[in-house]
Amino acid sequence: MTATPTGRPLFQRIYLLGTGLIGGSLVLDLKDKGLVGSVVGSDRDGTRQDEAVELGILDETAPPVPETFRQCDLVILAVPVLELLQILEKGFEGNTLVTDVGSVKKMPVSAYRRAVEAGRGYRFVPGHPIAGDERSGPAAARKGLFEGARVILTPVEGFAGVSTSGRSLPGGTLPADVELIQLMWEGTGAETLIMDPDIHDSVFAWVSHMPHMAAYAIIDAVLGNDPELVDLSGGGLRDYTRIAASSPRMWADIAVANREHILTATRGFRNSVDKILKALEDGDRERLEEIFKPIAALRRGQA
Amino acid sequence: MTATPTGRPLFQRIYLLGTGLIGGSLVLDLKDKGLVGSVVGSDRDGTRQDEAVELGILDETAPPVPETFRQCDLVILAVPVLELLQILEKGFEGNTLVTDVGSVKKMPVSAYRRAVEAGRGYRFVPGHPIAGDERSGPAAARKGLFEGARVILTPVEGFAGVSTSGRSLPGGTLPADVELIQLMWEGTGAETLIMDPDIHDSVFAWVSHMPHMAAYAIIDAVLGNDPELVDLSGGGLRDYTRIAASSPRMWADIAVANREHILTATRGFRNSVDKILKALEDGDRERLEEIFKPIAALRRGQA
Repeated sequence: MTATPTGRPLFQRIYLLGTGLIGGSLVLDLKDKGLVGSVVGSDRDGTRQDEAVELGILDETAPPVPETFRQCDLVILAVPVLELLQILEKGFEGNTLVTDVGSVKKMPVSAYRRAVEAGRGYRFVPGHPIAGDERSGPAAARKGLFEGARVILTPVEGFAGVSTSGRSLPGGTLPADVELIQLMWEGTGAETLIMDPDIHDSVFAWVSHMPHMAAYAIIDAVLGNDPELVDLSGGGLRDYTRIAASSPRMWADIAVANREHILTATRGFRNSVDKILKALEDGDRERLEEIFKPIAALRRGQA
Repeated sequence: MTATPTGRPLFQRIYLLGTGLIGGSLVLDLKDKGLVGSVVGSDRDGTRQDEAVELGILDETAPPVPETFRQCDLVILAVPVLELLQILEKGFEGNTLVTDVGSVKKMPVSAYRRAVEAGRGYRFVPGHPIAGDERSGPAAARKGLFEGARVILTPVEGFAGVSTSGRSLPGGTLPADVELIQLMWEGTGAETLIMDPDIHDSVFAWVSHMPHMAAYAIIDAVLGNDPELVDLSGGGLRDYTRIAASSPRMWADIAVANREHILTATRGFRNSVDKILKALEDGDRERLEEIFKPIAALRRGQA
C-alpha cells in the first residue's frame, strides 16, 4: 500500500456495510486519495454486492461479523436508517470504530447509548453527509460526490451509567475519533460541521425531510388526478418527480425515524398551503404577490 | 435582409412587447435562424428596454400603437397575464397578426372574443412555450432556449356573433395563421401541439401551477419557522428555492387568471399532504412506503 500525493492513508482497512450511492462514493474517494489501504464489505442485496466488487468499490467481500470487523480500523454503516438502528443497538466489540451516513441522528445516538448501557459499547462517530441525489445503488456511486459538500457530525456526549450488574459504563464519542472522521471527510473535499443530534434532526426535517414529503404529495396528487399528466410536465413537475424518485425504503425509514420533527414541519407546511389556498379562494392577487415576493427575493439574494 | 441556410424569413418585421426571458429568447432565435428581418418593440420598464437594445434583442424601440403595428407582420405579446388580457381585449386593427406566450390560455381567448364582439377583431394565435426557468428579464434571454421544447397552441374556434349594431362578426384563429406560428416555433427547434384552451389550463394547473404554489408554501413554511434554515439546505430545499424564485408578479397573475383549475389541483394536493400526515401521525411505515413506491417507480421508468 502506497500513499498518494494527497495524503497518507488514514485507514489500513475499512469495512463498508451497504454499497449504495453514499457508501460507494465515499470509499471510491478514499481509495482515489490514498486515504485507505483496502475495503472489505457486504450488501444484503447480492446483486448490488457483486456490482460493488466489479465497480472497484469493494476489494473483497466478507460477512459483517466480529472476526471481520476485528481486521478493520473503521466500519462504515451505509444502510437505511431502521437497519442502522438495529446494528448500532446490537453493538460491536469495544475497540471497533464505527461511523454512519444516515440522514437522521437522534435515534442512532439513542441506539448507541442503549448498546453502551447493555455492555456492548464501542467507538461511534455519527455522521451525515449532505450529498447525493435521487439515484441509488453502487452504479450511482462516483468520485467527487462530496467535493464542496457539508458533512454534519453529531458526537455523542460522554455519559456515565451503571449497568444492572453494577459495572460503571463508559460511553460517548472520543475527540480523537471525531478528528479522524473529520480528516476522512475533508479528504473527500467536504467541510465538516459539529451539531447536536436533536438540532440536526429538527433542521433537516425542515430543509430536507418535509420538502421530500411535499414532493411525494405533489406527485401523488397528479397521479390521483390523471397519471398521463406526468408525461406532459414541463420544468415544474420534472423537478418534483426527480426529488420524489429517491428510494422509497430509505424515505419511509427516515419518516419513521424522525417522525416528530417531520410532523411539526409538515404541519407548518400545510398551514402555508392553507394560507395560499385562502388567497386563491378569495381571488386576492395582491395577497398572493405579498406571499410570493420574499420567497423570490431570497433566491435572488443568494444568486 | 438575407436569409440564412436555415430558412427564408417568415416575417419582415416583428413587434415584441415585453423583453423578458421568453420574448427575448424567441426573437434571438428568429434572428439567428434568419426567420425575421428586423425586430422593433418596447418594454414598460425602461431599463429592461435599454438592455434589450444593447443585447441585440430589439433593433429599435417604438411605442405599442397602431402606427407601429401597421408596419409589422407579427406582434408578439410577451407580458404578464393580466397585462396581456387588457391588451387583447383592447384589440388591434383588423389585419394585425398577434400571438402570445402566456402560461394561461382560456382567459386570453375570452379577452380576444370580447374584442371581436366589440368590433375590435384581429388575427390571433394563442401560444404557450413550455420553456424557461426561474430567471427573468432580457439578460436571461438566450438562443436555443426552445430547442426540443413543446409549444402549445390553442386556436380560437370560429364563432359567429351579432354586434349591438346588427353587424355580423367574424372571429376565430385562421388555419393559415396557425401554420405560420407553427413554422415560427419549429424554426426555433420546438415541437408544436394544438390543444383546447380549457384543457390546456387544467393540465398546466396540475403539472406546473399547483407545483409552483407548493414550492412557495414549502419556502413560506421554512421562512416562518427560521429564515436562517434556508442557508443550511442541501439538495432538497435548493430545488424549491429555485422553483419559487420566478417572478412574483408573473405567478400572482397566473394564479388569478387560472384560479379555478389551480384551486382544484391545490385542493387535490392538500388531500395528498393530509394522507401523508395521517400515515406519519400513525407512525405507519408500511403505509408511507406504499405511498412512496409508485412515485419513485414512475421516474425510474422514465429514466
